Amino acid sequence: MSLNKRESNQKKKVALIGCGLIGQSWAISFLSAGFEVSLFDPVEGVTVQSKEKIETKLRDLHNYGLIKNKDISNFFDKIHLAQDISQAIEGSIYVQESGPEDLDIKKELTKKIDTATPDNIPIASSTSGIPTSLYASDVEGNYRCLVAHPINPPHLIPAVEIVPAPFTNEAIIHSVKKIITSIGKEPLELKKEIPGFVVNRLQGALLNEAFDLVKKGIASAEDIDKAISEGLGLRWAFMGPFQTIHLNAPEGIAGYVKRYEKMYKEMFNKPDIEWASVLKLGLEEELLSLYKLREREKHEKERDNKLTELILHKTKA
Amino acid sequence: MSLNKRESNQKKKVALIGCGLIGQSWAISFLSAGFEVSLFDPVEGVTVQSKEKIETKLRDLHNYGLIKNKDISNFFDKIHLAQDISQAIEGSIYVQESGPEDLDIKKELTKKIDTATPDNIPIASSTSGIPTSLYASDVEGNYRCLVAHPINPPHLIPAVEIVPAPFTNEAIIHSVKKIITSIGKEPLELKKEIPGFVVNRLQGALLNEAFDLVKKGIASAEDIDKAISEGLGLRWAFMGPFQTIHLNAPEGIAGYVKRYEKMYKEMFNKPDIEWASVLKLGLEEELLSLYKLREREKHEKERDNKLTELILHKTKA
Repeated sequence: MSLNKRESNQKKKVALIGCGLIGQSWAISFLSAGFEVSLFDPVEGVTVQSKEKIETKLRDLHNYGLIKNKDISNFFDKIHLAQDISQAIEGSIYVQESGPEDLDIKKELTKKIDTATPDNIPIASSTSGIPTSLYASDVEGNYRCLVAHPINPPHLIPAVEIVPAPFTNEAIIHSVKKIITSIGKEPLELKKEIPGFVVNRLQGALLNEAFDLVKKGIASAEDIDKAISEGLGLRWAFMGPFQTIHLNAPEGIAGYVKRYEKMYKEMFNKPDIEWASVLKLGLEEELLSLYKLREREKHEKERDNKLTELILHKTKA
Repeated sequence: MSLNKRESNQKKKVALIGCGLIGQSWAISFLSAGFEVSLFDPVEGVTVQSKEKIETKLRDLHNYGLIKNKDISNFFDKIHLAQDISQAIEGSIYVQESGPEDLDIKKELTKKIDTATPDNIPIASSTSGIPTSLYASDVEGNYRCLVAHPINPPHLIPAVEIVPAPFTNEAIIHSVKKIITSIGKEPLELKKEIPGFVVNRLQGALLNEAFDLVKKGIASAEDIDKAISEGLGLRWAFMGPFQTIHLNAPEGIAGYVKRYEKMYKEMFNKPDIEWASVLKLGLEEELLSLYKLREREKHEKERDNKLTELILHKTKA
């Protein structure tokens, strides 16, 4: 968070509907970035309880040095407890709904929120898997509905999946990405809706293989976990899977695919996805423009330095 | 590395056959742990060149503080350049082969190494995917052959896959795990051979899904990478996939599977692996004994603290 962004967020208010763990985390992220937050949870008593939990977590983060401000009690004054949805939304520039993962509840809740929300104010849902098309098709103001899915624990993990429906307005998507960025989060945007979005699909694919390895009696859960926590996960803490393989062959991702696609295919016996043909859909071009081959040595050096620092950090921690 | 382990490794020698990037990394790991190393590469000139590269990397790691000893020039005296395989192996308690990923070359090289190696000295291969059954079936002393596969870049990543063949002797497996642990690495043991072992199967499953997301036009490579580097990868830097989901439901892994298996199945349309039935194969029991439900709050707190420290570390770096 730069100071400029924090100052420009002063006096801006967001409405957080649903005050469980996810709603509380959103409150922390918005407060840390200078916003006022209005909380409301339809379940009796939850709105009031959440304030205390938010304050405790803010103190923890402050003690760790993750929140730079010297006096976090300022934040506490910016937490407003609303009596109903309308009161929470009044004067807000953004609404984040973090209700239960239930299609019918989400449909009904979104309709209520839409009725109470002025035109052109975005209504984002924290759902981890229900596309906006499914829960907001019948909502009158659905042009400003979309998913903004944070990753658990959301007050710590930067990535937020932005998933618009076909009916979501471009200007709304742009404005939501701007707000998410202004609170120090990293928006990643889906061009199309898909069940599970990107994060849970990647996690699901890895989990599926992990379960299969246990089923086949290949290794213990503890040893499979080590393959990630003492292996692949160390690179993935600062580098995605595509950047990783792009750096693992002198010719970049095309060289990696040429060398290893056959090996991976034989592992999985899966002829349905041709990696080499996917390269031609713009994937290779994108990676070569993000990480140029002529800067390869610099990128390798950076990777090794980051990895060294991470391992040193883990050793000390 | 504890000092005791380092001292007990003093004057012990290992033979490293093949001195490319992987062989050099092994040299660094063994030297840092107090071992003498004997290097030999069948390709003319490579043995001599590797010494300089090893020294440069040792200096880099020392500058970073990853190597605790004050005077690393001691290490340089412990690098021995051999004229042939036999000279490298003479007096060694362990042989690590890091030759090319080619079945025929590996078969031939392993035979030569076996002939030059005294009884009961382990011969480990760095191969990332060729099972020992394939390259060492015809080797006379195959009872002491197995895979010890490090992860790139191997001088930094702790995980090492130990993959015995059905003919590998139990005492050899035990002794290799002990040596690998004594150099500060984390051995993970496969109970059965499988193409790609554990690490590359997990990576392959994730990559396959990432390629599929690009093919379907769901998101850019950059945004898919963010889902890992700013999302899932942050947890995975210190916690494997099973431990992660075990902590994501109050009832542990069984609760997670109950809640989410259906969602994941609908994503992938894959009825072939029943997560719930895999739980009963000892998976749930193992996780509950590793991470007890009654210590759940402690584990959650630890996760959040580690994550906070990691994010603070990334912010500073």
